[in-house]
Amino acid sequence: MTEYNAPTRDMNFVLNEVLDISKYSNLPGFSDVSPDLIEAILEEGGKLASNVLHPLNQSGDAEGCTRHEDGSVTTPAGFKEAYAAYQAGGWQGVSFSPDYGGQGLPYIFSVAVSEMMSAANMAFGMYPGLSRGAADAIYAHGTDEQKNRFLPKMIAGEWSGTMNLTEPHCGTDLGLLKSKAIPQGDGSYKISGQKIFISAGEHDLTENIIHLVLARIEGAPEGTKGISLFIVPKFRINDDGSLGERNGVSCGSIEEKMGIHANSTCVMNYDDATGWLLGEENKGLRAMFTMMNEARLGVGLQGMAISEVSYQNAAAYAKDRLQGRSLTGPKAPEKPADPIIVHPNVRRMLMSQRAFTEGARAWMYWTALWGDMHHKSEDEATRQKADDLMGLMTPILKAYLTDKGYSHATAAQQVLGGHGYITEWGMEQFVRDARIAMIYEGTNGVQALDLVGRKLPRNGGRAVMTFFGEIDAFIDENKANDELKPFLDGLSDAKADSAEAVQWLMANGMQNPDNAGAGSMDFLHLMAITCLAFAWAQLAKAALEKKDSGDAFYDNKLKTGQFFLDRILPDGKAHLAKIKTGAASTMSLDQAAF
Amino acid sequence: MTEYNAPTRDMNFVLNEVLDISKYSNLPGFSDVSPDLIEAILEEGGKLASNVLHPLNQSGDAEGCTRHEDGSVTTPAGFKEAYAAYQAGGWQGVSFSPDYGGQGLPYIFSVAVSEMMSAANMAFGMYPGLSRGAADAIYAHGTDEQKNRFLPKMIAGEWSGTMNLTEPHCGTDLGLLKSKAIPQGDGSYKISGQKIFISAGEHDLTENIIHLVLARIEGAPEGTKGISLFIVPKFRINDDGSLGERNGVSCGSIEEKMGIHANSTCVMNYDDATGWLLGEENKGLRAMFTMMNEARLGVGLQGMAISEVSYQNAAAYAKDRLQGRSLTGPKAPEKPADPIIVHPNVRRMLMSQRAFTEGARAWMYWTALWGDMHHKSEDEATRQKADDLMGLMTPILKAYLTDKGYSHATAAQQVLGGHGYITEWGMEQFVRDARIAMIYEGTNGVQALDLVGRKLPRNGGRAVMTFFGEIDAFIDENKANDELKPFLDGLSDAKADSAEAVQWLMANGMQNPDNAGAGSMDFLHLMAITCLAFAWAQLAKAALEKKDSGDAFYDNKLKTGQFFLDRILPDGKAHLAKIKTGAASTMSLDQAAF
Repeated sequence: MTEYNAPTRDMNFVLNEVLDISKYSNLPGFSDVSPDLIEAILEEGGKLASNVLHPLNQSGDAEGCTRHEDGSVTTPAGFKEAYAAYQAGGWQGVSFSPDYGGQGLPYIFSVAVSEMMSAANMAFGMYPGLSRGAADAIYAHGTDEQKNRFLPKMIAGEWSGTMNLTEPHCGTDLGLLKSKAIPQGDGSYKISGQKIFISAGEHDLTENIIHLVLARIEGAPEGTKGISLFIVPKFRINDDGSLGERNGVSCGSIEEKMGIHANSTCVMNYDDATGWLLGEENKGLRAMFTMMNEARLGVGLQGMAISEVSYQNAAAYAKDRLQGRSLTGPKAPEKPADPIIVHPNVRRMLMSQRAFTEGARAWMYWTALWGDMHHKSEDEATRQKADDLMGLMTPILKAYLTDKGYSHATAAQQVLGGHGYITEWGMEQFVRDARIAMIYEGTNGVQALDLVGRKLPRNGGRAVMTFFGEIDAFIDENKANDELKPFLDGLSDAKADSAEAVQWLMANGMQNPDNAGAGSMDFLHLMAITCLAFAWAQLAKAALEKKDSGDAFYDNKLKTGQFFLDRILPDGKAHLAKIKTGAASTMSLDQAAF
Repeated sequence: MTEYNAPTRDMNFVLNEVLDISKYSNLPGFSDVSPDLIEAILEEGGKLASNVLHPLNQSGDAEGCTRHEDGSVTTPAGFKEAYAAYQAGGWQGVSFSPDYGGQGLPYIFSVAVSEMMSAANMAFGMYPGLSRGAADAIYAHGTDEQKNRFLPKMIAGEWSGTMNLTEPHCGTDLGLLKSKAIPQGDGSYKISGQKIFISAGEHDLTENIIHLVLARIEGAPEGTKGISLFIVPKFRINDDGSLGERNGVSCGSIEEKMGIHANSTCVMNYDDATGWLLGEENKGLRAMFTMMNEARLGVGLQGMAISEVSYQNAAAYAKDRLQGRSLTGPKAPEKPADPIIVHPNVRRMLMSQRAFTEGARAWMYWTALWGDMHHKSEDEATRQKADDLMGLMTPILKAYLTDKGYSHATAAQQVLGGHGYITEWGMEQFVRDARIAMIYEGTNGVQALDLVGRKLPRNGGRAVMTFFGEIDAFIDENKANDELKPFLDGLSDAKADSAEAVQWLMANGMQNPDNAGAGSMDFLHLMAITCLAFAWAQLAKAALEKKDSGDAFYDNKLKTGQFFLDRILPDGKAHLAKIKTGAASTMSLDQAAF
């Protein structure tokens, strides 16, 4: 049986001591946020995650979801009750606008809460996660009437939401989309088509499900310029707000898949379902992508969260399992063998997870704070800067955190040796669950292409220059801090490599776009290592300020940071070397040779 | 539905053109080996793999093995018939001594056949694979009476075999082993104890199962010096060779696990089971390790094999799936979109698999050829050199090929996007199956420790110096070959990095053994990259000799080799940099901090 303890000490450290969010009290929603409130929220969220959600993680995987003959879907035992507890705690509306019943807290809190839910039970966390995304889209693009009709129920968690993009022949390339929408003259449309891989498409947790569906209005242009977004509720809603008749949408089947068994991945059939346009005609992709940024950050968060929970269980096993003796002499001579945590290679795996997870948390929360500034700052320049940074960070966080979340879950499984492969120990589930995060919300390859093809060149490279400027400013501000020097040197070196890669890609990608494509994943990882170096420099700075406090927490933070410098940072140079070999050998074979 | 086509062209190329095994006709078993015979064996083996074994791979995973109330175990539908076909083809005895009914072909053929079986159906391949290991141990350590009693039936595939090492509290650290053996005065022993994770421990493929069991004879010393190896047949064997009464060994349960569902992973209970000592009293570990070298190579082979089969299916999908357009303009303008193989990042994943798998195959076969020389050469110096090289290569091949086999299976799954996560497409099974190979036969961390702690320092570093000498000689022999220069330069560079790492480890591991442990996995990967560079230099040399043949095979080989130089070789420098940071940060935290 696995366990999860929310790392609230580390979360508090990042929020209060590293990012010092009290500095942002001028932003709406921040003024009431005291360290005490932060601690209270994290403690309560942590309890729900550890005591209610995590105990259902393995049983939910074993049982999975069940589709019945009438097309209804039942979630695993305990999920309804757990969802009710989640709903009753008001967690769904943490950072949503109070205008629709939310608590109006900063977005960064929503991220912290999501981290705990995803770590405790990733398959569970997807139900409210997708609902938040759908609510965000309605909030951003809906009419007042739509907002009033749907948002209060969604924010209260009474109704859930989904995103319907993929069709059998059309995943990344949404221009191929075929689902049809026929206007009915009364403002409504009849939607028909088949959608696949729809997470949480049908379930028994909420009384209604609000599907957001991409479809093509009859006569619309081909390709991506003829796609619109529709609201298609499972049950139509009467004017008094009560639920009306069943709409023409149903779950045709549940996919059998590698993991996240407790989340229903549905084939959804739309058969003259009644829907209403959300946002402008033929501008559905833009509306969908508004919410996709935050959805992608949420997926990155899943990668980091699985690294955290799998680390916790691997570390507990490594302290408990007796096998062999330390290379430097017995450490537990009174026992038949030492705990395996004495072995340097076991330590290396555990330290890699810590250095990744702790750095990634700081980086993710830092980015979320820019998300708050993007939405809430009164300063136009700040909003633009925040938008640039969010746009740049989104593909990097999504892809790197899920790539590494998976490889660290694999390493955590490795710590348990043979037991790691056995289902009842729970470690292999972390790996299977983590695997999907590299794929959905745009595969990691698509993220890399988004980074080099869109985010990098946009506005003459303004976003990446802004990011490098932040790094330079930090280094400059702290250059007198001798103890921070190893971190500043590491950061400076990584940034220089990233900047060199940017220049190479700009010059050679222009000449042949395949050069950019072939280097895109290495560039994403190089940038990610630079981001982690920046995060670790900030963590180390905050830890150094308290290093004489006598609290081992700060000393451990610095030691883990040193491990980052020793064991993760060096990968950057290999990525740079690979980027600079260009596309020639990658593209050299004829298709027929494969 | 996945497919598998044995890469017989590539296998033939390595055997005939790269290694030129006709040169070894002075060795027993090699004299009859003509290129025609090689081709015939590979073709026949390939047919069995593709047409009989592979079609059962997904169904076997879905059905798994079933344990019945009486302790008997049924393999998935079709396995009995497939095993009968395997047995009828004489595949079990390919490289076994003709004295016991084998065909006496070189070991390298057994490796090539194993590759195909593992790629086609890894879970199936484990049944005969473990039997070969058990037969090897009896051949090496058994009395004439034991050999005559067991080997003919095992070589014919009528009986299978297992290896019983692990106990609940005792995996890597066999010194903790508790199973007991009580001498009965008639040469037999009563064996009692519980063994776990016993692959193929019970099944319905053969009429008898010959268990090799580690146990401690009553009164034997504690630790690893008091462990003996026993032969414990499921059914006792009458003097006329017929099967006698059931022995006191039974399958208590089958483990539920992440993958290889079609192989029964058993808890085996020994309850006064009758067994006979194999080899010397208290020297059971030595006997077990004799066969473990080849077993470990077999596991490495599984990693490479899964990379091959997952590559084939990913490549087929990438040529078929239409999504998006090439960055350099439409390549299939007549279609609604280009096949995704036009995208550089998809190519990068596929080329990485090719460069790994083709290099690994040459490296593995090269090592297997040393295995043949070790057993069969009449020259004492050659036998010792071969033994040194085999010993050095074994942990590197086991760990690197399984680490990369898993990550490449993951990449192949990634090529399919969302479909990769869905069970029916079969890609996620490759990942789940590949995962175990990093764990069993000694976790990869144990391999890394074997490398730096035993294989490297033994005889003053003779093995690694021998290996470097082979590289130097190759470079020197070919230095006039201008077209080979990029490969020789890459090899020379990798070798220099490996040599630097060896020096660092020798100097700093002596001073603090944790320095060697902390760098062990990076060193193993650095050595592996050097081995691949050596393999690619040999592949490129052979391909260059035919480059004017007009056969694209050779040109493609050179291009894939260039990709290796561009995209895999650069990782070596990162490994070296990490090794040289030592153990300080890895070991810096108190245990309590984890």
